[in-house]
Amino acid sequence: MAQPNVRPVGDLNAALESLSGRFHNRLSTAAAVREQHGHTMTWHRNQPPDAVVFVQSADEVADVVKICAAHRVPLVAFGTGTSLEGQVNAPFGGISVDLSQMNRVLAVHPEDLDCVVEPGVTRKQLNTELRATGLFFPIDPGADASIGGMVATRASGTNAVRYGTMKDNVLSLTAVMADGSVIHTGKRAKKSSAGYDLTRLLIGSEGTLGIVTDVTLKLYGIPEAISGGVCPFETLEGACNAVIATIQSGIPVARIELLDEKQVAASNAYSKLSLAVTPTLFLEFHGTASGVAEQAGLFGEIAAEYGGGPFEWTHNAEERNRLWQARHDAYYSAVQLRPGTQGVATDVCVPISRLADCIMETKADIDRLGLVAPIVGHVGDGNFHVSLMVDTEDAGELDRVNEFMERIVRRAISMEGTCTGEHGVGHGKMKYLDAELGGSVEVMRSIKRALDPLNILNPGKIVRV
Amino acid sequence: MAQPNVRPVGDLNAALESLSGRFHNRLSTAAAVREQHGHTMTWHRNQPPDAVVFVQSADEVADVVKICAAHRVPLVAFGTGTSLEGQVNAPFGGISVDLSQMNRVLAVHPEDLDCVVEPGVTRKQLNTELRATGLFFPIDPGADASIGGMVATRASGTNAVRYGTMKDNVLSLTAVMADGSVIHTGKRAKKSSAGYDLTRLLIGSEGTLGIVTDVTLKLYGIPEAISGGVCPFETLEGACNAVIATIQSGIPVARIELLDEKQVAASNAYSKLSLAVTPTLFLEFHGTASGVAEQAGLFGEIAAEYGGGPFEWTHNAEERNRLWQARHDAYYSAVQLRPGTQGVATDVCVPISRLADCIMETKADIDRLGLVAPIVGHVGDGNFHVSLMVDTEDAGELDRVNEFMERIVRRAISMEGTCTGEHGVGHGKMKYLDAELGGSVEVMRSIKRALDPLNILNPGKIVRV
Repeated sequence: MAQPNVRPVGDLNAALESLSGRFHNRLSTAAAVREQHGHTMTWHRNQPPDAVVFVQSADEVADVVKICAAHRVPLVAFGTGTSLEGQVNAPFGGISVDLSQMNRVLAVHPEDLDCVVEPGVTRKQLNTELRATGLFFPIDPGADASIGGMVATRASGTNAVRYGTMKDNVLSLTAVMADGSVIHTGKRAKKSSAGYDLTRLLIGSEGTLGIVTDVTLKLYGIPEAISGGVCPFETLEGACNAVIATIQSGIPVARIELLDEKQVAASNAYSKLSLAVTPTLFLEFHGTASGVAEQAGLFGEIAAEYGGGPFEWTHNAEERNRLWQARHDAYYSAVQLRPGTQGVATDVCVPISRLADCIMETKADIDRLGLVAPIVGHVGDGNFHVSLMVDTEDAGELDRVNEFMERIVRRAISMEGTCTGEHGVGHGKMKYLDAELGGSVEVMRSIKRALDPLNILNPGKIVRV
Repeated sequence: MAQPNVRPVGDLNAALESLSGRFHNRLSTAAAVREQHGHTMTWHRNQPPDAVVFVQSADEVADVVKICAAHRVPLVAFGTGTSLEGQVNAPFGGISVDLSQMNRVLAVHPEDLDCVVEPGVTRKQLNTELRATGLFFPIDPGADASIGGMVATRASGTNAVRYGTMKDNVLSLTAVMADGSVIHTGKRAKKSSAGYDLTRLLIGSEGTLGIVTDVTLKLYGIPEAISGGVCPFETLEGACNAVIATIQSGIPVARIELLDEKQVAASNAYSKLSLAVTPTLFLEFHGTASGVAEQAGLFGEIAAEYGGGPFEWTHNAEERNRLWQARHDAYYSAVQLRPGTQGVATDVCVPISRLADCIMETKADIDRLGLVAPIVGHVGDGNFHVSLMVDTEDAGELDRVNEFMERIVRRAISMEGTCTGEHGVGHGKMKYLDAELGGSVEVMRSIKRALDPLNILNPGKIVRV
C-alpha cells in the first residue's frame, strides 16, 4: 500500500559538499538560479531545489546520482522548464540536474533515418542541424522543448496525428538509473523483441525512474510537397465534426488544429492575423504534389458538409510558417486576453468519435462558470487544451476553476479518454490517476519502488510511494 | 544479483485439487494435451506442463493465477502455440493456461478505428469478423497466431514496414497480474501521458509479468487500392541494396520481402509457383490508385539500378493472395528441401544500411558451413530469418549449426542490431541478452522480481531471477 509521501531522509549538506568538490562553479545555490529551476510555465507554485548542477556528460550525471543516492537527496532532471504540470518542481528540495549543456547532436545516420542526441538538444536546434540532410524530426509540442524533456513527458503536439508521439519516435535511449548505473535500452534496429520494453517504460516516466543521457530518434525525409491552410466554420460543433469525418475517412493529414473563436480573436491580436473570428481549423498536408492537392480537395469537401469554408490553402512556406507560429503562440496570445492574470493550461484526450461531445460540454462549462478560457487542440488525435486566464486573487473564481478542472477530467475519462494526452502527470494530475487507471497505479508504484528504492528520482511526481 | 534459476517451490497437488474443483473437465492432465501445450513450432524440446486449464473469462484467469500463487505453482499462458523460441514450454512444469476459448471480438468501434478482442482471437479470425466494416488489422506474422500471443512476443511480420509492430498497434490492454489482480492499462484515447507505459511494458513480456485477457487494437481502413508484385534480381546483394534504396527514398511500401534463390526454389515446388530461381523481392503497395502506381513505378526504377527486373505488378487480388500465401508457407516449403530433418528458425534485425552486409556475411557462413538454410526476410525493417534444416542425429552438423547461430547473433549486435526482431526471447535467445543489452537485463530482472515476486509467471523465460 502507499505510504505517505515523505521527504526522503537525507544529508543535504554532505551531498552539497561532495557535489561542490566534483563540479565547482557548475554547482549553484544562488536563489535566482534555484527559483528558475523550481517553476514551470504554469500555475503550480515555485518549489526551488536546494541547488542546481549543470552537467556535461553521462558520466557526470552518474556521479551526481551516486552522490545523491549515498546521501539520500532528491534529484530533479531539468531541460528547458517548459513542462506544464509541475514536473520540474522540487517539493522536497534536493538537486536540480540541469541538462541544457548536454546539447550535442552525437550522430546523424541519414542512411538509417535516425540520429543520436543528448537530452539538452531542443527540437528547433535539432531540425536546424539536420537541415543539410533533407531529413527532419517531426514531433513538435509547440514550445522549443528539449528532447530529454519530450522523452520524459511522452510529448507529442501538432504533427502527432501523422507521425505519432515520442513513444513512436524513439528507437532507444541511455539512462542513469537510481543507483548510478548507466543502461542502454536498445540498439538502432528499427524493431526488436529482445525483452521488456525499457525504452517505452522510461518515455513518459518524467525523471522518476532514470535520467536520460542520450536518445536515438527516428527521422523522416522532408516531404516533397507541403501545403497548408485555414478553414473557418460556422459553429464549433461543425468544426469538430469535420475533424471526426476527416480522420474516419483516412485522409493522412499531417496537422489538423482547432482554435475556437476566442482563440482566433486572441491570435489575430497577438500574431497580427486577420482571420474571421469564428471556430477555425489550421491544416497541413505532406506528400507528393498531387497527393497533397488530393488531400486538400477531399478535406474541403468534408468541411463544406459541416458548414466550413472556404478552405484556403497554399504551398507558400512563409505564409504557412506565419500561421504555425501563431498556433504555437496561442498560449501567449491567450494571456493577453486578460493581462495580469495567471495562465492555467490543461489537456485531455478522448476517442475521436467523442471529440465534439467533449468539446461542446467543456465549452458549456466555460460559459456557465464565466471563465476566460480559449480552446485549442490537436483535434486529429482527439486531444485538446483549455487555457484558463485566472485571477488568482479571486477566491470564487478559483473555486470555479477547480470545479471546471475536475469536470473536464471526469468527462474525458467517462468518454473512455485520458486525463492528459501529452502534458503528463507531474504533480498536477496525480489525483486523477486512480480514477483513470485503477489498479495500474499500484503496479506503477511497485515499479517505482523496485527501480528507485530510496525514492530519490523526482519524488512526489506521477505516483506517491 | 541473479540467483540460479530454480523451480518455484510449490504444492502442485494442492493446486490441481483446487483447479479441478473450479474447472472440472476444463482441467486436463492427459499426456497428449500436456504435450501439445509443451512444444513450439521449432527445435526446442517438448517440456509439457503438469496440466492444462481451458479458461473462458478474465475472472477465470484471475482464479487460476490466485490458486497457483497460493501454492507457488508456475503458469504458462498459451494461445496457438506458434511461437518460435520456446515461449510456451514449461521447463518447471506447472499449469498451461489455454486462452483459445477466449476468442470473442468484444467490441468494434469503426468510428474510432479500434476494437477490443479477447486474447484467443486469431489475426485471420479478426479480419474475417471485420470484413463488413471496411477496416482491417494489419499485423501479420505469417502464422495465424492469436492476438494475445502476438502481444506477448511483440510480433510484427510482413506489413510492419508500413504499419509498425504490435507495440504500435495496441491502445491498451487488460491483464491479470501475478497476485491475481486485474489491471486495465489505459482507455481508448489515441494517446496519453498518464503515467508509466504499462501497455508497452506488457507487450513483449511473453507472459512473464501478467496474462493478457483483452486487447484494444488500432484498425485501419482497407486501402482504396492495393497492388503487388514480384521482382527478380541478378544477385542477393543487388536485391538487398534495392531494399535499402527504397526505404531511404521514403517510398511507403506496405510489404517488401526477400526470398533468396534457395527459398524461391522451395516455394516454387511447395506452392506451385513458376518464379525464376534467383533472389527475389515480393512487394505490396497501399494507397490510392494513382498512389500505388506511382510507388510501383519508383520502385521499378530503383530495382533496375541494382540489377533487378522486370518488376511485374498487378491489382489482381487472387494473384496477390497466392503470392502471399506462398510467402507465409515459406517455412513449410523449406522443410521439404530436406525431408526428415528438423527446422530451426532464427531471426535478427539490423539498421537498414547494414542489411546487405549482414545478409551477405550470413550467406557466406551458410555456404562455408555447408548448411541447408534458405533466407527470407521482412527486409524493409532490416529484419530477416534463416530457416535451417538440420539433421539432429549428426553431431558435427549440430556443432556447425551452433556456430552459425552464435555468429549471426553476434554479427547483428555488432552492426547495432538485435538478436531478435520479432520472434522474442523465450528460452532460446536468453543467452544473448547480456551481449545486446548489458545492464538493462538487470533492470528487467528488478521489474520481474517486483511484479512477480514468487516467479510463477512463465519462469525461465526472458530473464533468470
